[in-house]
Amino acid sequence: MPDIAGATPRIARAGYKDWGRCDLTFVELSAGTTVAGVTTRNVCCSSEVELCRENLKGGKARALVVNAGNSNAFTGYRGRDAVEAITAKVATHLGCAQSEIFVSSTGVIGVPLPKDKAEVGLDRVFKTDPCTWEAAAHTIGTTDTFAKGAMASAMVDGRKVHLVGIIKGSGMIAPDMATMLGYIFTDAAVDAPFLQQLLSASNQSSFSCITVDSDTSTSDTVLAFATGKAGNAILRSLEDAGASAFASALNDVCRQLAQLVVRDGEGAQKFIEISVTGAISDDSARRVGLAIANSPLVKTAIAGEDANWGRVVMAVGKAGEHADRDKLSISFGAVTVARDGLPVDGYDETPVAAHLKGENINIGVDLGLGDGRATVWTCDLTHGYISINADYRS
Amino acid sequence: MPDIAGATPRIARAGYKDWGRCDLTFVELSAGTTVAGVTTRNVCCSSEVELCRENLKGGKARALVVNAGNSNAFTGYRGRDAVEAITAKVATHLGCAQSEIFVSSTGVIGVPLPKDKAEVGLDRVFKTDPCTWEAAAHTIGTTDTFAKGAMASAMVDGRKVHLVGIIKGSGMIAPDMATMLGYIFTDAAVDAPFLQQLLSASNQSSFSCITVDSDTSTSDTVLAFATGKAGNAILRSLEDAGASAFASALNDVCRQLAQLVVRDGEGAQKFIEISVTGAISDDSARRVGLAIANSPLVKTAIAGEDANWGRVVMAVGKAGEHADRDKLSISFGAVTVARDGLPVDGYDETPVAAHLKGENINIGVDLGLGDGRATVWTCDLTHGYISINADYRS
Repeated sequence: MPDIAGATPRIARAGYKDWGRCDLTFVELSAGTTVAGVTTRNVCCSSEVELCRENLKGGKARALVVNAGNSNAFTGYRGRDAVEAITAKVATHLGCAQSEIFVSSTGVIGVPLPKDKAEVGLDRVFKTDPCTWEAAAHTIGTTDTFAKGAMASAMVDGRKVHLVGIIKGSGMIAPDMATMLGYIFTDAAVDAPFLQQLLSASNQSSFSCITVDSDTSTSDTVLAFATGKAGNAILRSLEDAGASAFASALNDVCRQLAQLVVRDGEGAQKFIEISVTGAISDDSARRVGLAIANSPLVKTAIAGEDANWGRVVMAVGKAGEHADRDKLSISFGAVTVARDGLPVDGYDETPVAAHLKGENINIGVDLGLGDGRATVWTCDLTHGYISINADYRS
Repeated sequence: MPDIAGATPRIARAGYKDWGRCDLTFVELSAGTTVAGVTTRNVCCSSEVELCRENLKGGKARALVVNAGNSNAFTGYRGRDAVEAITAKVATHLGCAQSEIFVSSTGVIGVPLPKDKAEVGLDRVFKTDPCTWEAAAHTIGTTDTFAKGAMASAMVDGRKVHLVGIIKGSGMIAPDMATMLGYIFTDAAVDAPFLQQLLSASNQSSFSCITVDSDTSTSDTVLAFATGKAGNAILRSLEDAGASAFASALNDVCRQLAQLVVRDGEGAQKFIEISVTGAISDDSARRVGLAIANSPLVKTAIAGEDANWGRVVMAVGKAGEHADRDKLSISFGAVTVARDGLPVDGYDETPVAAHLKGENINIGVDLGLGDGRATVWTCDLTHGYISINADYRS
């Protein structure tokens, strides 16, 4: 992934857990960097999320700190103390306001983040050399099995601007409005309100369209930082030249990052894309898609490579959305298996079986009611998910 | 389980699947029997459910027919034809109206119920000897691993009245308003509107408080039949003598039946009772309880005998209900592990670990906001669930 002028990642070992790996990521941002963000709707959110929300009001950022191995969620005033110690120390180091420092933590819930370890980690990271985005992506991970990043570029105001994104997540994934620990960096100049508008829109068709297990994390956050070092005229609205190209590049990065989380879903063996059409609205289509994507019976059928479309019908019916059993059509891969509320007589099972043996599964649902459409992504539910989560110690 | 005067069960083999067992259950009801019912909210419901809803308006029943091995859901006009053939044949046999015959089917979705097999099965069952409730409970089951029944009695108008209930279900269990294939028979005399009122109320604290996998069946139905053969003065309202005793006995049977479904949850190794107190309303408490009960991460933690209360916090937070992180208390068994939004310092892990090793797990959540309370029941999520559902052919 390319360097982003004005955004410099570094990693170090704070020792939040008894492990040898780096677990603290520090990204220094040049003066003038704008920021936007979307955060979890979980009402039991962490101090980090609360502070992010407060700091987003200012729209300015000078640094991001990500702690891995301890989520600091549900830790009361001690958790808040640790976050404030971090922002104070970084602000002193950079000579900026505490409100320009953004902190995330991920890992076990309920254990206060050890302030002393954070301070040791920061002292180390301040002195270390910059690292690659790949190394940063690896360091923010916990149960992730691979480092996740994405990139895009766009022509804005005669200049090529770059975007890179890194993300972590594989379980407790069912974003409601936002979520995921994801960070996007760009050298484009974009003012904060417009960056927020674009990020919120991208989120609707990316992070809000994935689910691994229907569980919503207490810590999840997606932040976008724009350093402005590309030197383009500041983007303030969709009317500005290059704004559409930038929006499209941002969409692209968000969708790539979101899909990477599903591909690394805990125990996942298959990546499932569910396309819903013919709903009464796009929102309704998304909710139907997520009802299918969250159904344990659909997810286990796919794990078993079984074209059990009856379970898809069941999931459509329980979604609580407008649907008419007798107008419903369902396809697996390119083959329509049910149409207008009836199984298709003698459809060819061979291509369906072949499709289900692959890694990438497409399920199509047409509700036959209107023009609403949405695509959501999930993974299958396997023995691997059970093994990972029945053994992971609280 | 005791005989119920006026309700006579019989079983036979229709051969809906290629198996040697009986798969058709026929319960003849004496003239004057009243009926009440609650049915699934799944909008893709079966023809059987549609017909049940129509026939419930009449409030009178002369027979129940339950087909096992084929749910007849999502089968269009052919499915409807099969159900009407059954009601016509039974009505002719008994000399009653078709609207007094109630039919349920359970099993694979999307294959029309074979009308010829149903007719052969009915011819056989009409000629067979009555059977026990245990045999009927066994015959209505599909993936169930044991036959499920419950009983109770009450003194009404100086007479002892009896109730028996049978139920099937172990997967696709997340009732929304109603559900389950369950049948309750009583010799009490209860008029149909009052029976409906009592059944709907019982349902709220029994069938609506259980979940196995968050999936809602397309076929689920609970029906209560009152033959009146006990000879008591007809119960018409809660003011009538004995009505409270009867209501309490009905509650008791519904709760027993609901819990049996969870105990037989697919792959279940542990029975989990979740008590939520301090919510802003009983409904809110129930929704918080179900969010915990449906969380794959909570259910896998219990499977792993791990007191991972952080996952309970997460589930409370994602429920979409009023909750205040800093007022939340959580207990496992008799031990409070978190209080007022903080882990309890140095709580004794020994009794918690011992509790989690048992088969019956109690999770307590106090939201600290109001007087709303609810108890819900679920089971753990294990490798067994994956094995059963990744292999079950559509």
